[in-house]
Amino acid sequence: MNLHHNDNGWFTEFDLDDRSAFSLEIRERVFCEQSPYQKIEVYDTVNYGKLMVIDGFIMLSSKDNFIYHEMMAHPVLFTHPNPQRVAIIGGGDCGTLHEVLKHPEVQQVTQIDIDEVVTQAAEQYFPELCASNKDPRANLLYVDGIEWIKASKAGSLDVIIIDSTDPIGPGEVLYTADFYQACCSALADNGLFIQQSESPIAHMPLIRNMHHRLLEGGFSQPRTLFFPQPVYPTGWWSATMSAKQALPLDFRQADVARKSFATQYYNEAIHQAALAQPAFFQEALGIPAV
Amino acid sequence: MNLHHNDNGWFTEFDLDDRSAFSLEIRERVFCEQSPYQKIEVYDTVNYGKLMVIDGFIMLSSKDNFIYHEMMAHPVLFTHPNPQRVAIIGGGDCGTLHEVLKHPEVQQVTQIDIDEVVTQAAEQYFPELCASNKDPRANLLYVDGIEWIKASKAGSLDVIIIDSTDPIGPGEVLYTADFYQACCSALADNGLFIQQSESPIAHMPLIRNMHHRLLEGGFSQPRTLFFPQPVYPTGWWSATMSAKQALPLDFRQADVARKSFATQYYNEAIHQAALAQPAFFQEALGIPAV
Repeated sequence: MNLHHNDNGWFTEFDLDDRSAFSLEIRERVFCEQSPYQKIEVYDTVNYGKLMVIDGFIMLSSKDNFIYHEMMAHPVLFTHPNPQRVAIIGGGDCGTLHEVLKHPEVQQVTQIDIDEVVTQAAEQYFPELCASNKDPRANLLYVDGIEWIKASKAGSLDVIIIDSTDPIGPGEVLYTADFYQACCSALADNGLFIQQSESPIAHMPLIRNMHHRLLEGGFSQPRTLFFPQPVYPTGWWSATMSAKQALPLDFRQADVARKSFATQYYNEAIHQAALAQPAFFQEALGIPAV
Repeated sequence: MNLHHNDNGWFTEFDLDDRSAFSLEIRERVFCEQSPYQKIEVYDTVNYGKLMVIDGFIMLSSKDNFIYHEMMAHPVLFTHPNPQRVAIIGGGDCGTLHEVLKHPEVQQVTQIDIDEVVTQAAEQYFPELCASNKDPRANLLYVDGIEWIKASKAGSLDVIIIDSTDPIGPGEVLYTADFYQACCSALADNGLFIQQSESPIAHMPLIRNMHHRLLEGGFSQPRTLFFPQPVYPTGWWSATMSAKQALPLDFRQADVARKSFATQYYNEAIHQAALAQPAFFQEALGIPAV
């Protein structure tokens, strides 16, 4: 559970599980709208650019979102041999979409976020993330992502990216075996899946459960990737990748080395590094130590 | 510049460069002493165990210090072919010392922290970090670390670890070419050096300067390692390693794989991962992209 306040020129998010809080100095709130689903706010901060907050949770800042969005897109796409058909569930700020569209192999990306107001706020305050929204390969839908996945034709997707809010409240159903089974069915045989999976140091029980639920849902061995994300609780974040068949631990390294686009965080060495499993994490998951 | 306050059951450190703040919920302050050098406080937190604060800066928590201390000790020691003689400048909480003493090759470790009160507080509130203080290989001195290094016999050390406070105020001189030259002289020909080097996302100018000063001081190519540290600003931290002669990028991987001691974060894959340089970092240092 999180609370927040906006006081004396500082925005603070309290993480009442971790019993910690993170604050950014702000100039003013530039956007506030209660959509049918959630309260969306944008603040102008002193050193982190714009800050989007949904129901009191920090979603992204202009300064550091490049790490999260690159890590949600590039490792999974460079692991798939030929990612042509991609779905993004959530991701209404369009930052993950923007990274996915950098891949020339991608022929269509469907972004399914239930709340159009998130995208409207992003278009206004994070225009750099929305710069590819008019790409003819992009299809932005504002419907229920779970229903959309369940209605997808079996085997019709190469990559599914779950770029969702935290697994409490509305986001909770996105971490169930039932949903994972629907994703598995929608994926082609060599399809890959990735989902943001919270902080390795604060939310280990969630990550362990997620690994179990993915297996129950029909996915093969899940693999968690690690990366920094200063504006999220503990500053250390993760995403968990899985495959319909066997998850290749190798990725298209030669293609990363000669990629046609720029990145700010991701490269070949960072991809490899994100796969390194800390000792406590291996122990918690019951993986034999290196 | 940082300010802090202790209010309504929360301890907050404001980073007035980053314009961000980090807070932990506390039960009570259990220790407060103004030494001749600085103000040392220990808080009992709700979820992070004990928290040591010096002059308003968070130094360590029981919960997450294992990452920092393991990364200050093991990468440099497993890069050196045979680390027998080690000096730690700063490190009065004894956490780095504890990790260094896990290495059977190490024959003597001298820890030089000017302030004995830090160690007294650690012995009382972080006893797990001080568990090896009576090891016959350990020598704890409470004198000026810079003077100690300058007075060291040339070539008398295999590894120097600078586990200091931030490079402002008293810690500043530990980031000068003059000090690095003294370290270089004290090291044997195959000697290695490592120093904590702040946040890669908040303090890039400092890291770039440090690389230049190390070269001016006579060290060979510096290399920055990256790791999470939730209680430090941005949650993402670094240490920079350098060598008197050529810095080997390889390390004793086989020795890591069969190491005789337990770690919570560090292992072979994590060592390799810490060496991965993010794209923006390579660009900022002028290193060709991978």
